[in-house]
Amino acid sequence: MTRKLWGGRFKKATDPLVERYTSSITVDACLARYDVQGSIAHATMLGRCRIISRADSRKLVRGLTRILRSIQQGRFAPNPRAEDIHTQIQQTLERRIGPVAKKLHTARSRNDQVALDLRLYCRDAAAYLTDDLRGAQRALVHLASRYARAVMPGYTHLQHAQPVLLAHHLLAYVEMFERDIERLRDAHIRIDVLPLGSGALAGTSLPIDRAFVAKLLKFPRVSRNSMDAVSDRDFALELCSALAIVGMHLSRLAEDFILWNSVEFGILELDDAFATGSSLMPQKKNPDVLELIRGQAGLVIGHLTALLTMMKGLPLSYNRDLQWDKRCVCESIEMTHDALIVLARLVQRSTIRTSQLTALLHDDALCATDLAEYLVERGVPFAQAHTIVGQVVVAAERQGIPLKQLGLAQLKRFSTAFDRRALAVLDPRASVARKRSVGSTNPTMVAQALVNWQKKLKRG
Amino acid sequence: MTRKLWGGRFKKATDPLVERYTSSITVDACLARYDVQGSIAHATMLGRCRIISRADSRKLVRGLTRILRSIQQGRFAPNPRAEDIHTQIQQTLERRIGPVAKKLHTARSRNDQVALDLRLYCRDAAAYLTDDLRGAQRALVHLASRYARAVMPGYTHLQHAQPVLLAHHLLAYVEMFERDIERLRDAHIRIDVLPLGSGALAGTSLPIDRAFVAKLLKFPRVSRNSMDAVSDRDFALELCSALAIVGMHLSRLAEDFILWNSVEFGILELDDAFATGSSLMPQKKNPDVLELIRGQAGLVIGHLTALLTMMKGLPLSYNRDLQWDKRCVCESIEMTHDALIVLARLVQRSTIRTSQLTALLHDDALCATDLAEYLVERGVPFAQAHTIVGQVVVAAERQGIPLKQLGLAQLKRFSTAFDRRALAVLDPRASVARKRSVGSTNPTMVAQALVNWQKKLKRG
Amino acid sequence: MTRKLWGGRFKKATDPLVERYTSSITVDACLARYDVQGSIAHATMLGRCRIISRADSRKLVRGLTRILRSIQQGRFAPNPRAEDIHTQIQQTLERRIGPVAKKLHTARSRNDQVALDLRLYCRDAAAYLTDDLRGAQRALVHLASRYARAVMPGYTHLQHAQPVLLAHHLLAYVEMFERDIERLRDAHIRIDVLPLGSGALAGTSLPIDRAFVAKLLKFPRVSRNSMDAVSDRDFALELCSALAIVGMHLSRLAEDFILWNSVEFGILELDDAFATGSSLMPQKKNPDVLELIRGQAGLVIGHLTALLTMMKGLPLSYNRDLQWDKRCVCESIEMTHDALIVLARLVQRSTIRTSQLTALLHDDALCATDLAEYLVERGVPFAQAHTIVGQVVVAAERQGIPLKQLGLAQLKRFSTAFDRRALAVLDPRASVARKRSVGSTNPTMVAQALVNWQKKLKRG
Amino acid sequence: MTRKLWGGRFKKATDPLVERYTSSITVDACLARYDVQGSIAHATMLGRCRIISRADSRKLVRGLTRILRSIQQGRFAPNPRAEDIHTQIQQTLERRIGPVAKKLHTARSRNDQVALDLRLYCRDAAAYLTDDLRGAQRALVHLASRYARAVMPGYTHLQHAQPVLLAHHLLAYVEMFERDIERLRDAHIRIDVLPLGSGALAGTSLPIDRAFVAKLLKFPRVSRNSMDAVSDRDFALELCSALAIVGMHLSRLAEDFILWNSVEFGILELDDAFATGSSLMPQKKNPDVLELIRGQAGLVIGHLTALLTMMKGLPLSYNRDLQWDKRCVCESIEMTHDALIVLARLVQRSTIRTSQLTALLHDDALCATDLAEYLVERGVPFAQAHTIVGQVVVAAERQGIPLKQLGLAQLKRFSTAFDRRALAVLDPRASVARKRSVGSTNPTMVAQALVNWQKKLKRG
Repeated sequence: MTRKLWGGRFKKATDPLVERYTSSITVDACLARYDVQGSIAHATMLGRCRIISRADSRKLVRGLTRILRSIQQGRFAPNPRAEDIHTQIQQTLERRIGPVAKKLHTARSRNDQVALDLRLYCRDAAAYLTDDLRGAQRALVHLASRYARAVMPGYTHLQHAQPVLLAHHLLAYVEMFERDIERLRDAHIRIDVLPLGSGALAGTSLPIDRAFVAKLLKFPRVSRNSMDAVSDRDFALELCSALAIVGMHLSRLAEDFILWNSVEFGILELDDAFATGSSLMPQKKNPDVLELIRGQAGLVIGHLTALLTMMKGLPLSYNRDLQWDKRCVCESIEMTHDALIVLARLVQRSTIRTSQLTALLHDDALCATDLAEYLVERGVPFAQAHTIVGQVVVAAERQGIPLKQLGLAQLKRFSTAFDRRALAVLDPRASVARKRSVGSTNPTMVAQALVNWQKKLKRG
Repeated sequence: MTRKLWGGRFKKATDPLVERYTSSITVDACLARYDVQGSIAHATMLGRCRIISRADSRKLVRGLTRILRSIQQGRFAPNPRAEDIHTQIQQTLERRIGPVAKKLHTARSRNDQVALDLRLYCRDAAAYLTDDLRGAQRALVHLASRYARAVMPGYTHLQHAQPVLLAHHLLAYVEMFERDIERLRDAHIRIDVLPLGSGALAGTSLPIDRAFVAKLLKFPRVSRNSMDAVSDRDFALELCSALAIVGMHLSRLAEDFILWNSVEFGILELDDAFATGSSLMPQKKNPDVLELIRGQAGLVIGHLTALLTMMKGLPLSYNRDLQWDKRCVCESIEMTHDALIVLARLVQRSTIRTSQLTALLHDDALCATDLAEYLVERGVPFAQAHTIVGQVVVAAERQGIPLKQLGLAQLKRFSTAFDRRALAVLDPRASVARKRSVGSTNPTMVAQALVNWQKKLKRG
Repeated sequence: MTRKLWGGRFKKATDPLVERYTSSITVDACLARYDVQGSIAHATMLGRCRIISRADSRKLVRGLTRILRSIQQGRFAPNPRAEDIHTQIQQTLERRIGPVAKKLHTARSRNDQVALDLRLYCRDAAAYLTDDLRGAQRALVHLASRYARAVMPGYTHLQHAQPVLLAHHLLAYVEMFERDIERLRDAHIRIDVLPLGSGALAGTSLPIDRAFVAKLLKFPRVSRNSMDAVSDRDFALELCSALAIVGMHLSRLAEDFILWNSVEFGILELDDAFATGSSLMPQKKNPDVLELIRGQAGLVIGHLTALLTMMKGLPLSYNRDLQWDKRCVCESIEMTHDALIVLARLVQRSTIRTSQLTALLHDDALCATDLAEYLVERGVPFAQAHTIVGQVVVAAERQGIPLKQLGLAQLKRFSTAFDRRALAVLDPRASVARKRSVGSTNPTMVAQALVNWQKKLKRG
Repeated sequence: MTRKLWGGRFKKATDPLVERYTSSITVDACLARYDVQGSIAHATMLGRCRIISRADSRKLVRGLTRILRSIQQGRFAPNPRAEDIHTQIQQTLERRIGPVAKKLHTARSRNDQVALDLRLYCRDAAAYLTDDLRGAQRALVHLASRYARAVMPGYTHLQHAQPVLLAHHLLAYVEMFERDIERLRDAHIRIDVLPLGSGALAGTSLPIDRAFVAKLLKFPRVSRNSMDAVSDRDFALELCSALAIVGMHLSRLAEDFILWNSVEFGILELDDAFATGSSLMPQKKNPDVLELIRGQAGLVIGHLTALLTMMKGLPLSYNRDLQWDKRCVCESIEMTHDALIVLARLVQRSTIRTSQLTALLHDDALCATDLAEYLVERGVPFAQAHTIVGQVVVAAERQGIPLKQLGLAQLKRFSTAFDRRALAVLDPRASVARKRSVGSTNPTMVAQALVNWQKKLKRG
């Protein structure tokens, strides 16, 4: 039996099976450094408020600082037999500085302690995930800039819709990641609240100074209700939810790239260093990285569902069900971090096959909408123009040729409004250039967007 | 076969089964008023930009305004045979103002139109759900104020932990709802972006004025990338996620009240108007409303999962899978709205059985922590004090009496540090009063919190 | 205020808001016919066991039979102001046959009644969904038979892997649907248990004959524990779970067909009657039906999550949270039913562009594995053969030609083991023919599989 | 860079980041023993079919058998730098038996290999989880037998409904676990199909004998379609779904026990060895184990959602997204296994406070239904009896006394049908005894059920 922070009330030792089952060490090891940071602030405050002596406070801080260094240097391995990471750190401290270590537990409960640790972790993650998203944006802008003038078929329903700039397509993802960053920023504000000092649920009668601890740990706000503070995991849910949306965005980008990388689309070539082979089929060069990113979205969505389900219907205040929160939160954070970093590099090193883009644009039905608008300009009502061009498309399809090859004579059979300039309309590059609405695929506007993003994403 | 906005390209009529399966009218009827509002702004802009004549623009606006009035007066029933609500509105307009109605479709696609409608709907919902949450806060503050001095057992792990004020417990929920309101406000900012003018995916070549439309519809921002704009549902996901958290909060409050309303807890009595009976058991007075609220959280969580799953792995840009988004979004909004309103009234009208609170407080083991802290003040290290009091608790339990009845003599057997004042510590009301940390259950602080909330929640 | 089946204990009328919120009529209308069937059996038993008089029993049965007929003829509309469908049916009965109707409520509670109704509904659904799945299998076998000899690229990671028969690819889905049918059959066995007679939770003291009711309603088993019987929804969860897997299969088939229907793959052409157009782009012929089927999987998965979440952590026995079960179950059933029927017809009427299959097979890297196996037959260890062929593929890729065009001379530079017959190996049709393992794409085996399925699926 | 099973086609080494990201070793280590078992069968077959020499086959089998032993003895640690567990095993084999090890890879791809491994793992798990469920049933039957005659309030809506036997309540969970066992048995049938021999997707041209491998590995069936076989994870989904329902059952049982263990209910006492304390509050004895079990249901539900979401919309055949399946499946299996074992012991060692049951039964409104039925026997129609008793209940409530204490005189004021025997009806034990329907809480029937279960659950 390992040592515990409680026991006087118990007549029997805990069943070893229970010890193993309730141990959270594999789950909460990710909190180690944050636990120590929180304890340093707490110990400092206890001394300053004379709840313990200044000397004891200094001893605690010194001991904790050494542990923090071990953790940062990767020399602090979680002990699989410890009850949890907090207990392990406490015991390490006791071994190092003796019984004074026990004073750290003054005016603090594990309920507010673990709430603090998880907030510190989430706050940190929100920051580095933002960097990761910026990295992914940079890679996309970089790829878009390399092929700034490339035109490709734009898709709706995975069908050729209208010509667009490849850069426009890629910048759509830059916009998504920008919203993800905004969501992380908003989540950060609600993460950034100090729960420590809430005790087990009711607060404490000791003269602690929560504002001082908040200042030490750089929290702009202090929680206002102790029962809420120890049982609140909204901040974790909000982060998980933001990451589920990041995951969804990543899965869409992965899907696009997997499609482009197929023989049939043939638009994108992965760098060999970012593809994998088959143990059986010698010709295979598989987009495994992209598939793993796409699939990973499922796991992150599952974790969000799990955390919501776990909390649903729990009475106030703290309940042990919450121990599992870390399994959802930590894995979602780590997986998203990994995926964003590997994705950024993969995007950076990908090649677009512009010749294949040109080949795909031979399907000039992509410009059918332009042809209809051309008729509208010549006075044909839109609905009628739509019908006429629909029939033109079917005619070309039947003959197995592009619209252009129908020639003016055939076009005139469908409407006398067609004249010489009709055929010029059927040029994808011209189609793109004609667009003029804000946010459209117009090349000047897209070029400007690229410049704006490059400026914004320049590293300080 | 109903009329459609497309068709020239098709050699055959749509299969009736397909018409039925692809119809979204039952799903998107909730968008009717927003669709018309968007169309009025679009038509106004078309006239102002001379894309259509001023006279035509006026005709369109007049016709649409009449339809809007029908909708607002509940006189516009969705036609189950229409393809979708947009088509039904368009056809109604055509019947009323003739062929000019077709001009409304200039420089607009259903992709940007439906994105606009859903945003208008979500924006509206974010506003009224905020009001609903304020209402729930008001009811909780009201109930808390009625029993401002009532002390009750505070629970962790559903075990008696420490005494707290009932008002403190109730205010924990007020804090949760405050965060919900913050999340809705943040979501609102990202909802509040105009997608109209993005066309099907590429923008348009017609000289539209998106900023003007934004001004008419009170959107502070205009979307920056047309491909993103037509396929983005982040705003809906963010709203659904905020509502899933609201649902989780509601389920916890419902759980607490269901427990309190049980014979065993006996703390809370529901107003007869908010309880239901049994068809078989004459004595039953069931908290069905609370159970429905608790269960509803499951549905809202399921809708969030559904929407995320639906979008996962979709290539750009618009795909018809998104049609189902409305089923998730609308139902989540409506259910949350209903639950908040009925909950507020139920809370408002509930009665606390203070005599039962007093009875529950006879379990003075609730003050065991106070007794340990008392020993600490007398120089006993906390860990040792914790063990001593644990043994005291076991002794009382064995004799089946409260701690207080052990008397000083027995206490002294466990530790000589106990003196006369030990017994006075075992008073729940004193325990509460001793708390002094910010956010604690200290009565003065809770009273102040009540005043602050009352001020904040005062109606305009 | 509507009439209720309870009330004596209540001093106040139910709040109208509560009535609206707790009403389940929109949710449980789908149970109408099953409710009446169950009541007919119950009334028959009451008479036979002399709990009520034979005459009263007959009156009840006659009245109920008339209501059943109204329902079957679509003449029984749910009344939005009724508390639930059971109450509405009860009231209708009272209007029709007078006070004797009240006797129907003898020895029955709404708890066991609604459990029965839901089981009858699920049992029925399991049967017709099985038929729907058979229909989808038939359509796939039909399409596969029409193109029984067509060879296509087989994909892993959406990359060309090895040649396969189109029929082999389609039959993979037939296998999936077969497992779905097995799961429905297994779920059916656990659905098929009579809960009626369990009372509210404890059973009844009246001399009912549950075995007789079971016989009337064709239930082979009777529930063994009344508390379990009224709160068990495993059968619904199991059905929802089976439908979530069906939905997943449908989404994969939809994805394949959407890909095949793209310009880039160009393998499949949808019948015009099963495609939809665009209001803006005249050339569009969109696979909306397939996208809706793919997206729908998200909703069904969400409903499964919802139902599990809803039930999680509920104490025994019946709780009102369960009212929402119908929303998950009924919608999942109806959506799956619709999707299977529309899919079957769509598959049946689709056309494969065999010329495009031939074009895609020009990529003879598909046969790289065959080339490696050819080297193995000539004594080269597999790992080495794999490396050699990998280099051959790169060489061909660099020159932008199929492997075949490298010619024997070039091949020999990579390995002297290549001889004249090497080039013959690079033929997709030969590759397929060489396969001989059970379950492989070998044409004779696939033909046999088609025959077996046709026999199995022949309509009675 | 670690060694891989592929590479000839690649001009560059894999990026180290990609190696780390695509590595699945932490996920698939749980498959180690199954991988070796499968390989032994495969190697045996290769020799028997003369695809490799008998001597080589024997060498492979001997080498693999030694590895299997290492694994079984816990001496085979996953190498965090290996690509996956299959590669690590392959490399270990090569180190031990030299280049002949490479021949193991004949006529097999990682796609069918991993499908086999996962099936072997799931098949094993279905077996030991069944044992675990039997253990939980045994513990419940044991507890029920110890208190076979104890009567308690039965709850609906967490309100006192009717008296039931404690054993009846506990046996409801035994029924649930029985259905869980049935579901595992059904899942087992669909797990129990051999996928090996399907190659990467198309089968193989080598003369393998799948039926022989099936016999060696005790699979009664062989998969019929190679494309389906390598991409099918239905069996894993079905297992996860069965475990999600197990988790839901466990969460309900945990909830009941947490409630019973509260001060307010006071029905159940946990053994000290199965409870945990608080680091702050000395009196606390918390049901952490039960809370962890309850919360764990959320994780298992989340994993099911994840796996479904992951597979949704994937084209045929194998895609790397499936790598994550193991994370969902293995964790769900292991968590469920742990929870069932710890729960069984906890239940076994719990104590029921029968005196508290007696105290709770003083609330004789529990027998209100009996009183109504008593009036029915005296000729009062049920609806009227229901109303009368409802009023009686209110009267007692107002006076704060049990119904019994109202006395006959007062009862008669509500209905003249009341006579002397009315008061005798208000006895919970009599109420239970009066029940006579099959599956009811009737003591004789419950005793019989206990006997039946004891017989069924008797070990070996």
